[in-house]
Amino acid sequence: MELGIIGLGRMGGNMAERLRRGGHTVVGYDHSKDASDVGSVEELVERLSPPRAVWVMVPAGKPTNDTVTRLGEVLEAGDVVIDGGNSHYVDDQRHGEELAAKGIGFVDCGVSGGVWGLQNGYALMVGGDEDNVKRLMPIFETLKPEGEFGFVHSGKIGAGHFVKMVHNGIEYAMMQAFGEGYELMEASDIVTNVPETLHSWQEGTVIRSWLLDLMNRALADDPQLDAIRGYANDSGEGRWTVQAAVDHAVPLPAITASLFARFASRQDDSPAMKVVAALRNQFGGHAVESAKGADSPGADVSPPSV
Amino acid sequence: MELGIIGLGRMGGNMAERLRRGGHTVVGYDHSKDASDVGSVEELVERLSPPRAVWVMVPAGKPTNDTVTRLGEVLEAGDVVIDGGNSHYVDDQRHGEELAAKGIGFVDCGVSGGVWGLQNGYALMVGGDEDNVKRLMPIFETLKPEGEFGFVHSGKIGAGHFVKMVHNGIEYAMMQAFGEGYELMEASDIVTNVPETLHSWQEGTVIRSWLLDLMNRALADDPQLDAIRGYANDSGEGRWTVQAAVDHAVPLPAITASLFARFASRQDDSPAMKVVAALRNQFGGHAVESAKGADSPGADVSPPSV
Amino acid sequence: MELGIIGLGRMGGNMAERLRRGGHTVVGYDHSKDASDVGSVEELVERLSPPRAVWVMVPAGKPTNDTVTRLGEVLEAGDVVIDGGNSHYVDDQRHGEELAAKGIGFVDCGVSGGVWGLQNGYALMVGGDEDNVKRLMPIFETLKPEGEFGFVHSGKIGAGHFVKMVHNGIEYAMMQAFGEGYELMEASDIVTNVPETLHSWQEGTVIRSWLLDLMNRALADDPQLDAIRGYANDSGEGRWTVQAAVDHAVPLPAITASLFARFASRQDDSPAMKVVAALRNQFGGHAVESAKGADSPGADVSPPSV
Amino acid sequence: MELGIIGLGRMGGNMAERLRRGGHTVVGYDHSKDASDVGSVEELVERLSPPRAVWVMVPAGKPTNDTVTRLGEVLEAGDVVIDGGNSHYVDDQRHGEELAAKGIGFVDCGVSGGVWGLQNGYALMVGGDEDNVKRLMPIFETLKPEGEFGFVHSGKIGAGHFVKMVHNGIEYAMMQAFGEGYELMEASDIVTNVPETLHSWQEGTVIRSWLLDLMNRALADDPQLDAIRGYANDSGEGRWTVQAAVDHAVPLPAITASLFARFASRQDDSPAMKVVAALRNQFGGHAVESAKGADSPGADVSPPSV
Repeated sequence: MELGIIGLGRMGGNMAERLRRGGHTVVGYDHSKDASDVGSVEELVERLSPPRAVWVMVPAGKPTNDTVTRLGEVLEAGDVVIDGGNSHYVDDQRHGEELAAKGIGFVDCGVSGGVWGLQNGYALMVGGDEDNVKRLMPIFETLKPEGEFGFVHSGKIGAGHFVKMVHNGIEYAMMQAFGEGYELMEASDIVTNVPETLHSWQEGTVIRSWLLDLMNRALADDPQLDAIRGYANDSGEGRWTVQAAVDHAVPLPAITASLFARFASRQDDSPAMKVVAALRNQFGGHAVESAKGADSPGADVSPPSV
Repeated sequence: MELGIIGLGRMGGNMAERLRRGGHTVVGYDHSKDASDVGSVEELVERLSPPRAVWVMVPAGKPTNDTVTRLGEVLEAGDVVIDGGNSHYVDDQRHGEELAAKGIGFVDCGVSGGVWGLQNGYALMVGGDEDNVKRLMPIFETLKPEGEFGFVHSGKIGAGHFVKMVHNGIEYAMMQAFGEGYELMEASDIVTNVPETLHSWQEGTVIRSWLLDLMNRALADDPQLDAIRGYANDSGEGRWTVQAAVDHAVPLPAITASLFARFASRQDDSPAMKVVAALRNQFGGHAVESAKGADSPGADVSPPSV
Repeated sequence: MELGIIGLGRMGGNMAERLRRGGHTVVGYDHSKDASDVGSVEELVERLSPPRAVWVMVPAGKPTNDTVTRLGEVLEAGDVVIDGGNSHYVDDQRHGEELAAKGIGFVDCGVSGGVWGLQNGYALMVGGDEDNVKRLMPIFETLKPEGEFGFVHSGKIGAGHFVKMVHNGIEYAMMQAFGEGYELMEASDIVTNVPETLHSWQEGTVIRSWLLDLMNRALADDPQLDAIRGYANDSGEGRWTVQAAVDHAVPLPAITASLFARFASRQDDSPAMKVVAALRNQFGGHAVESAKGADSPGADVSPPSV
Repeated sequence: MELGIIGLGRMGGNMAERLRRGGHTVVGYDHSKDASDVGSVEELVERLSPPRAVWVMVPAGKPTNDTVTRLGEVLEAGDVVIDGGNSHYVDDQRHGEELAAKGIGFVDCGVSGGVWGLQNGYALMVGGDEDNVKRLMPIFETLKPEGEFGFVHSGKIGAGHFVKMVHNGIEYAMMQAFGEGYELMEASDIVTNVPETLHSWQEGTVIRSWLLDLMNRALADDPQLDAIRGYANDSGEGRWTVQAAVDHAVPLPAITASLFARFASRQDDSPAMKVVAALRNQFGGHAVESAKGADSPGADVSPPSV
């Protein structure tokens, strides 16, 4: 079928390519003229026959909001917009209402697959009305991996990004689990073959998984991870997961611990631990480390403590 | 090769069967006469030709300790004992020393695979001296899954059970991650297709894994998990993981949160939360729930709080 | 000085009383006619001489939003509104902007003290412009406890409620700390005098605190907390604290754990732990507890685990 | 009454001084000849009249174990040993049994008070038999603070150190709570007066406490805590608290989070977060920070994430 795509970065570009390989007619627009088939959003809309379908694949937040607003101005009743970016599900709900007021449909689609998606397909999680989703199925069929998995219509508008957000929250905790296990093995002086151990776990264990495979790829290149600093960014969805949990009164201790571990990994010094150190010094006379840096963080030879 | 096995329960019995299918000569002993090839540990030892190898596959703690002690009495220098149970690595270190004093070798072997192992093979994690491990390789080769994975010599005596313990700790956090994600999706009123969502995740996602596959098996039978209570036991290795982390000063927030969630799941009422409720009542006049049971845990219509 | 107060519930009524005892002229309005000095917000405004000061002491959210909006309609440039409720600091920022557009000042004031405040004074945390805060100091001086503590101008508009929110977050973790310690002592069979132990801690310890005193008051009435269910509500500020932490990328593990413990305390059954139980059953054949209720949650007599 | 004290460091020396001021006869022994009244443990025992009481105030672990063993050799039936150090309650139970075999009594005593104890008294938490505790009451009465608080006989042998351990666990979480709250306020750009805010909280708030007072002492000297690094040691009792919780299947999320935060504060780089960073790089092409150090840890400008 015919599809407009706005945003031809790494993700959008690869998805356009996979769709074209699958026989669809794709008209792409991007800020970068080199990548773009048309010169403007208006031109993209003109190039498509109604009822149109336009896939938005730009960064979440203002870029997506602006694009959806612009599409609301140039599309017609009966058209449909798909947000395939990483939008917050709350934004989806607002976008859906704004477009519905003009008779334009809205579908949100969480996409997983990263750099592997062009070849293997993208896992798609979709939210929206049954009618709109059904109409877009040819697109989803081409983008998804072959086989029975990799596509779901999860619920109402916002549900696609909601479950993608949860997917990423689960991912945070799984990554943290491997990180914690790795660190504990490395800390033991009886375990001398940590990379080999992780290698062996790829079959026959309960924890076999794609993340474990990736961990082994990383260790194959750098067995001690010497080249990598223990510094982890977060792309927003982990935060939204925790906030959604708080909103829904759902306890989420492992996922939240994983998010906080990333926050802490980015601190040069912890204000909270300054307070703890200051308090220990106040009540117990425990030595504090000078902020100038302590080279030999040895055991605390404290007196019988309070 | 020739191997004695002590303990022919579900795990030991299946492992003996897999070894026999692989052409090894297995002499098994079990408390249950029906399962046993011999009438006693002494008889088992007599039936094996030196240098003997005896695999212990009985519950961790006293049963394993008693069995290893008994073997120390009846085996000879040059023999080797393998502990394939779920022993604590600290026990391994003691067992290794006790047997070494008599010239008997000791190898610890963490085993993963559960009810699937007979067919698919067992993931094996081994600790001990190079010589002893090398000598037992024919056994390990038969027990492990086919292919390049599923066996590792992780380090010194105790290392096999240490890394198996860590494997289980990682497993705890992965299970908790799926549980948390499931609960958050269920709590959302926009996500209406949770089982289908989890089904779809089996390909093309970052979190694809054997545990996700198992979760889908469970949901296929019982889509709302109606028949299962949210009550989770722990088999000891999660506790040891946290204790090892504390001993090694390694922060393990996600794995520990997972263990604590299991502890909490088994409480009818939480003494800690009684204190919190009592304190809220003291300072703010917040109503407490009677211990007799509160049927309608609704929103707290508290006054401007302190 | 002269002050209007809207909202004469437990908190607002006591504050009005403390102000009158301190010589101020208070005009109060409440939905309940019995408590109210005037029949409407308009009448309250008429009764005050400009430049007026009106203290809003109604529940956070819609009631406060509606009241501030109404005051924006009936007050004049030069007047000032104080929000003494438990508003979210983000609401304060919006209210400040709305009123500023009409030349009306806005000050937010977090209030701590609960049922003890009438007698002992209220701890006040204030956000807003220096000029507005200075003008209201006679009010603050009367409301606060005697002595050098209990009042602070913490920063810009919103800062008062922000720090009050953080105060409550700290409070959550302190309460949780006492709850956890209590539970661990109760779980030990060598500690036979838990209430006496907590009683003794009120002097000479590092953890002496008002919360510890309150805990001892609660235990004096009910030494085993038999009458209280381990069920704890949350009044919103703990949630905001966690959300603010996520927004600011600040790791907050202890406070968040305390919030999640409250969430969990209100669940009859945990969906997350259903998943964990279902997974254990899938891979290990571990028995699950029937959802109908398990009467004898004993030790898990599981086979050597996977 | 007459008391021997072994260990005259900061704690033991001050306690001896407080006892002498209280009219007791104290014979002290210390490795350091300057501080010591006698030249050996034997001489100390000779200087005391039976039935003797000897207070051990040396570091926990080997020093205490060796001292108790030595006392078991030189004391007589009817004498009593008090361990006033920071021993693990499990050690107490073993010491109690060893001494009981010789008719020697054993009492464990957790001591809180730190550098303030000489002047204000020490909070004492005692475990042991009723008879032995009763006999030592004159000593406890002098050491404890004046008034009704500061002394408790908490239960059997080990109970004194157990509850002192729990006290310290609670202390960890309270310190962490203040640290987290401080950090969140510092992270906000609307809160401009953090030290003044903490100062004001010392009266009228729910969180007023000695630790809050100490925090204000620290901030009075160094309002931004510029001179202190966020590096916090742990003295062992926090670890034991978590291990006891794991042994007793008690969930302890806030206290454990506080312990882990200290562990993390002492790491130059986190192996766990190396893994997380490596995994993000593998699946998403997210940039990793070089281990050589990243000077500008800015926002992650990642593409639509997986």
